[in-house]
Amino acid sequence: MHITKALLTLTALTSLSACTTLPEGSSSNDLLVIQEQGSFAAGGELVSTPGTYDNNNPTAAGQTFHGDHLYAFYQVPQDSKPLPIIMLHGAFQSGRSWETTSDGREGFQTLFLRRGFPVYLVDQPRRGRAGNSTVAETIEPTPLDQLFFDQFRLGKWPDYFENVQFDRTPETLEQFFRSVTPNTGPYDADVISDAMAALFDKTGPGILFSHSQAGGPGWLTAIKSQNVEAIVAFEPGSGFIFPEGEVPPEMPSAAGVLEAEAVPLVDFQQLTRIPIIIYYGDNFPIEPTTERGQDNWRVRLAMARLWVDAINRHGGDAQLVHLPEIGIQGNTHFPMSDLNNVEIADQVSQFLSEKNLD
Amino acid sequence: MHITKALLTLTALTSLSACTTLPEGSSSNDLLVIQEQGSFAAGGELVSTPGTYDNNNPTAAGQTFHGDHLYAFYQVPQDSKPLPIIMLHGAFQSGRSWETTSDGREGFQTLFLRRGFPVYLVDQPRRGRAGNSTVAETIEPTPLDQLFFDQFRLGKWPDYFENVQFDRTPETLEQFFRSVTPNTGPYDADVISDAMAALFDKTGPGILFSHSQAGGPGWLTAIKSQNVEAIVAFEPGSGFIFPEGEVPPEMPSAAGVLEAEAVPLVDFQQLTRIPIIIYYGDNFPIEPTTERGQDNWRVRLAMARLWVDAINRHGGDAQLVHLPEIGIQGNTHFPMSDLNNVEIADQVSQFLSEKNLD
Repeated sequence: MHITKALLTLTALTSLSACTTLPEGSSSNDLLVIQEQGSFAAGGELVSTPGTYDNNNPTAAGQTFHGDHLYAFYQVPQDSKPLPIIMLHGAFQSGRSWETTSDGREGFQTLFLRRGFPVYLVDQPRRGRAGNSTVAETIEPTPLDQLFFDQFRLGKWPDYFENVQFDRTPETLEQFFRSVTPNTGPYDADVISDAMAALFDKTGPGILFSHSQAGGPGWLTAIKSQNVEAIVAFEPGSGFIFPEGEVPPEMPSAAGVLEAEAVPLVDFQQLTRIPIIIYYGDNFPIEPTTERGQDNWRVRLAMARLWVDAINRHGGDAQLVHLPEIGIQGNTHFPMSDLNNVEIADQVSQFLSEKNLD
Repeated sequence: MHITKALLTLTALTSLSACTTLPEGSSSNDLLVIQEQGSFAAGGELVSTPGTYDNNNPTAAGQTFHGDHLYAFYQVPQDSKPLPIIMLHGAFQSGRSWETTSDGREGFQTLFLRRGFPVYLVDQPRRGRAGNSTVAETIEPTPLDQLFFDQFRLGKWPDYFENVQFDRTPETLEQFFRSVTPNTGPYDADVISDAMAALFDKTGPGILFSHSQAGGPGWLTAIKSQNVEAIVAFEPGSGFIFPEGEVPPEMPSAAGVLEAEAVPLVDFQQLTRIPIIIYYGDNFPIEPTTERGQDNWRVRLAMARLWVDAINRHGGDAQLVHLPEIGIQGNTHFPMSDLNNVEIADQVSQFLSEKNLD
C-alpha cells in the first residue's frame, strides 16, 4: 500500500505530494545531494576453453567466460565522510536488502547516505546482477515463504508476533517475499570474500555491514583485506570462525546443528585489529524451545557470544547487542528494514561515532 | 583503468579529485539532486503447494512461492519532468546496462536524471535481482565472450573496428564481459511484458527505453498498458510483431533465420497511438556478408524498416535512425554506453522534445 502510494506520487511530482504520502519515519522530504554514483564488477575468475575461436561458426572452442565477480552500486553524497560503508546481503537476498523497506520507507542505503557516508551495495558472486557462476547450478522454484516468515521472525505463520516491527498489510508481506532471489551457483564463502577483498582494494579503507549469511564471508573479508576498518554484523547466521584448538562444541537446535569452524590463529588475529559490533533482534528465547524458527536464533546468539569473548580474549574489540536487552523490542531478522530502522541506524551511528569511524 | 581511477578518488572525496580523474564526457562534476529513490517488485505470480504447513517440520507442503515479478530501482530528481523513463535491458544483461559504462563514465540512468527525468531501471523477471522463476532452469557457465565481442560489434575478435566507440583498455573489456548475467528461468516475452505492464500501473504514464532483446517485450508492454506514452528502442533484436496477414517473409542470415511474429490487428493498432523511435549503430553492411556478427544486424535493420513502414501504414508514428546515415559513426550494440553516449542521449532528448514528452 505504501509502495503504491509512494509511486502514485511520482506522477504528481511535487515535493509536497511526495512528502504527504510517504510513510512515517521517511526522510524523503529532505533532498539527497549526490556527488557521484555508478556501478562496476570486482574480483572474479576467467575460464578459458581450449581450441580456436571461429568467428563465423562459434562454439565453446577458444572462448572465455567471466564469472564469480561481485556487482556493486555506489553513491557518494556531497561533502561525504572519509570512510565508505560497504553493505553485504544475506541468503536468498541481494543488494536490494538495503534499499527501500518492504513497506516503502527508506532502507539503510539512503539513510546512511543522508548521514554523509558513501554507500556501496553489493550483489555477491553467484547472486542477483553478479549471476555468472563458474560452477553450474540448477534452480528449482522452491516454496519457502512460510519458513521465511517463521525463521526471519515475523511471527509463527500465519500469526505475526504481537510486538513485531513489521508492517502487517498484505502488500508489505508480498514485497518482502518478492525481495528473495536465488543462488545462480553454489554458495562459497571463499569466492564471496575473495571478491569482497577485491572490492575493498578499489574502495580503499571502509566499513563493512553484513547481514545474516554474510557474517561468515564478512569475517573472511577482514582477514583477506586490511582495508576493512570495522564490521557491523546484523544477525550473523553462520560461518563463526575460531582459532584452531578453541572451537566450541556444536550446538543442536530445533532448526539443526550449528557448528563453528577453525581457522589458523594468525588469521583469527586479523579480526582483533578492528572494532566489531553484532546486533540480534527480538522474539527468540535464551532457553531451548521446540519452535524451529526461534530456536535457530537461540544457538546463533549463544555462538556469537562465545565468538565475541574469543575476539576480546585475543585482544580484540568486539561487542554484541541483543536489542531487547537495551529496550528495543520486536525486531525481526531484518533490523535494517524494520519499522524502527531509523532507531537501529541511530544505534549504529553511535557505535561508528564512538570508534571515530565517522 | 577509469574504474580504478574513479574509485580511488572516492577515498579522497573532494569534488576536485573526483573531477580531475573522471573520463572525458562525464558530468560528475555537477551535483545530482535526488528528491526520492528506492526499489520494489512489480507483477509476478504466486505458486501454492497443496497440504498443511508444519512450522516445526517444514516441507514444501502448504508453502507458497513468489516469482516471475520484476525488480525496479527508481530515482526522482528535484523539479523533475512529468514523465518518467523506464529502462528495460536486453539478453544476458540487467538494469546494470544503463548504469556506469564499462569504461567508468555515466550511463543513461544518470545522464537522464541530470536531464530532469525520473528514471526506473528494471531487472526483468527471471534475471538479476528478480531471479525467482516459477519455472526451473539449469545454468551452465557458457563461454560466449568472443561471440559477444563480434555480435555486439566491438569488432571482429580479437580486433576492434577501426572507428568503434568503445574504449580499448583491457580493464574496460573486462567490465563489459562482467556485466553479463544469466537467465534464472526460461525467457518468456509474455511474462516480462505482464510484469512491465504492472510496473506502468504503478508509475503511471511514462516513456519506455528498450535495448536489444527487450524490443519485443517492449512492444507487448505498450499493447498491454495504456501508460506507455512512447518507446525508444535501441537495436531491437527480436520480437518484431506484424498484423496477421502482413507478416513479412523470414530473413536468412549468417547468424541464422530472423522470423517476424503475427498478432491480431487490434493489438498491433495499440502501437500506432504512440511515438516510437528505433536506433541502430554502425559497422554492419546493408548487403549480405559471411561475417556472422555483422550479418545478424543486417537482417534486423531490414526487418525494423518493414516494421516501421507497417506502423506508419496503419496510421502510427514510428521512425528508424541508422546512426551512420546521420553521420554518427562507430556505435556498437550498446549505443547508450558507447564513448559518444552523450551525443546519443542528445539525439534521444531531441526526439522527446519534438514529441512534447519532456
